[in-house]
Amino acid sequence: MPHHFDIPQFLGVVALALAVAKFAGILAQRFGQPAVLGELIAGVILGSSVLGVVDPGSEVLHVLAELGVVLLLFEIGLETDLRKLLQVGGASAAVAFVGVLLPFVLGYAVCRMLRTSQEVAVVAGAALTATSVGITARVLGDLGRLQEPESQIVLGAAVLDDILGLVILTVVTGLTQDQAITVVGVAKVTGIAFGFLLGTLLIGGMLAQPIMRLADKLDVRALTTMLGVILALALAWLADRSGSAMIIGAFAAGLLLARTPQAHEIEKGVAHLGYFFVPLFFVWVGAQVDIRVFNPLDAANHQTLWIGGLLIVCAVVGKFLAGYAPFWFRGKKSVIGVGMIPRGEVGLIFAQMGLSKGIFDERMFSAVTLMVMVTTFLAPPLLKFLLPRSLPMVKPPAPEGTAAMVTEA
Amino acid sequence: MPHHFDIPQFLGVVALALAVAKFAGILAQRFGQPAVLGELIAGVILGSSVLGVVDPGSEVLHVLAELGVVLLLFEIGLETDLRKLLQVGGASAAVAFVGVLLPFVLGYAVCRMLRTSQEVAVVAGAALTATSVGITARVLGDLGRLQEPESQIVLGAAVLDDILGLVILTVVTGLTQDQAITVVGVAKVTGIAFGFLLGTLLIGGMLAQPIMRLADKLDVRALTTMLGVILALALAWLADRSGSAMIIGAFAAGLLLARTPQAHEIEKGVAHLGYFFVPLFFVWVGAQVDIRVFNPLDAANHQTLWIGGLLIVCAVVGKFLAGYAPFWFRGKKSVIGVGMIPRGEVGLIFAQMGLSKGIFDERMFSAVTLMVMVTTFLAPPLLKFLLPRSLPMVKPPAPEGTAAMVTEA
Repeated sequence: MPHHFDIPQFLGVVALALAVAKFAGILAQRFGQPAVLGELIAGVILGSSVLGVVDPGSEVLHVLAELGVVLLLFEIGLETDLRKLLQVGGASAAVAFVGVLLPFVLGYAVCRMLRTSQEVAVVAGAALTATSVGITARVLGDLGRLQEPESQIVLGAAVLDDILGLVILTVVTGLTQDQAITVVGVAKVTGIAFGFLLGTLLIGGMLAQPIMRLADKLDVRALTTMLGVILALALAWLADRSGSAMIIGAFAAGLLLARTPQAHEIEKGVAHLGYFFVPLFFVWVGAQVDIRVFNPLDAANHQTLWIGGLLIVCAVVGKFLAGYAPFWFRGKKSVIGVGMIPRGEVGLIFAQMGLSKGIFDERMFSAVTLMVMVTTFLAPPLLKFLLPRSLPMVKPPAPEGTAAMVTEA
Repeated sequence: MPHHFDIPQFLGVVALALAVAKFAGILAQRFGQPAVLGELIAGVILGSSVLGVVDPGSEVLHVLAELGVVLLLFEIGLETDLRKLLQVGGASAAVAFVGVLLPFVLGYAVCRMLRTSQEVAVVAGAALTATSVGITARVLGDLGRLQEPESQIVLGAAVLDDILGLVILTVVTGLTQDQAITVVGVAKVTGIAFGFLLGTLLIGGMLAQPIMRLADKLDVRALTTMLGVILALALAWLADRSGSAMIIGAFAAGLLLARTPQAHEIEKGVAHLGYFFVPLFFVWVGAQVDIRVFNPLDAANHQTLWIGGLLIVCAVVGKFLAGYAPFWFRGKKSVIGVGMIPRGEVGLIFAQMGLSKGIFDERMFSAVTLMVMVTTFLAPPLLKFLLPRSLPMVKPPAPEGTAAMVTEA
């Protein structure tokens, strides 16, 4: 049937995006950087401010990108030992709490010093709070460090962070709509978000093993992998509908199945989906970057660069210090702080909301966007610097199939 | 950033579609039918005329479905030996030529007998010509029969058919726009379509091996698989832009890589993408079926059912007899003819075009749609009846990875 949307053209763009992302990823690794950095840069180059091949506003591309981040968090969940995660739960909670509070206070203070209105300061502060777990998890995976305690703390903190970010988003949205913020209302949002995670793990924990046993008996090729993907998508949907974030649902699905005997099989199957979808997410993130605001020769950019620079300092210092919040932890606290630095989608959501409600002007919007992109690009090389790769990257022999994407097999 | 499109909702629908498709596929196999029949029925049930969960008009779903059929044809190409295909080339050509001519003439004659205008008869006849290779190839794969000469003849004929179908589409579109149809014009369209296939195989044949050797040396996980997918998408785009069909480009990409030592590795990787995307294609096809036109109690449907029934007879008889065109072939000719029966997208494109140009009325449109769906649903059980499964479906042991989707490993 005829469609207005040019599907062959889109498939061509996907082919190009994957090719450039793969090439840039390999190049980044040759320069000792994580592959994800190359993929992000590929996105910038293909994006609207340079070549204009990849349109970050494309609905279809956005869906593929979201599938990528959902599958990425599902994979990470599959490789996460819930007991290990709970063991560092206290540290994660400390990092998350301080890492939300400190950047918010710093961002708010800087904005007030620059004489913005209170509303602007609140939204800008809020935009500084939530870590983008995708970037950090992918870098830790690329370096083969996902199983270490520092990584587990970052992972747990980033998940908590996402929940806290959603609570703040709800509160700030309410504020901008002149709604009264009640303690009951905030508690409700918080309760739903945490309740979803707990409920899923409890109910799902009882069902996962018997269902997978049944699937194994049915003897249909790749059925366990497909059931895993179905569960990840279903919980992503359910998480969103419960007022939580999609990636939390996908992560919970991975945690649930990590404890089944089929975990390794599912991981191998999902990895192949990941190879396709995950780079599209990072290309999409990169494509949203408008590098023109970086141009210091254009006087119009000076104020943006100035405010953006201050916000970047707040963002980096706030999260870095939060890494030292679990003072009792004996590992590399600097890794934790740096791992929390990248801001992503949630930061952009705040910026977008601020703009559309008329709270932010274009300058403030660009400054927050600048903060998001710089923190995103900063973390991979810093992490790589703090954490040399643990194992050489070895390609498994062909008959064994291919290893999972995130960690070494 | 906020989007009008509800992504979590869409992911939920994808999860549901995959779950129902898997369940229905397993059920179909339990009743001795090919899994694809279950997936098609799942689509009908989820589609707009029954539950209304899956919207076949969704642009995003359409893209995922097209990715599915592109990957399916890529997989089939990967498992196809070009020499074997050329060995049965004469038989394929005979089947394709007779299988286009006969249904067209029968359809045209029936319409003229029913006193439709000449224009209506031409468009209806054209809608009967092109086989949907996806359905048949998937059924033959499900039955583990893809390597047999009958299957190779069907495959070759279906590819030629698609090219002929595109030529007819161009001619008919020209006719409906009152353009003069010149011999030169038709020859040009035909030449471009065949030229694309030949050019790709010649140029690509020289480049495929060295590139894959380089990829192997680079030692990046799943790089060969991703290069294969990139090639399939790129050739799908190129095929479309050269006036050919996307699936022909994808099939050519598979043929090219089938001769490299990495073929098996690529096949295993792509199979996992296929498990996700391919069922979405069949669900999407099924979701387009409006089962309400089947209701014989509604008098408004009588004429549609009557015309549709006659068109179905033309469609089935025409292709079945075409199976006997290569009189020198000593295999099961009935399998060839039945394998060519399903009509799919191209038939629907003709129906849609006829409707939008005002040549078809609603009744004629529904009759052609009825023909497409009945032929699609008829072929799987008939093929299954003519061809019992060659091998028991065995699930490979976990450490070996999972086998390719289309044939037994």
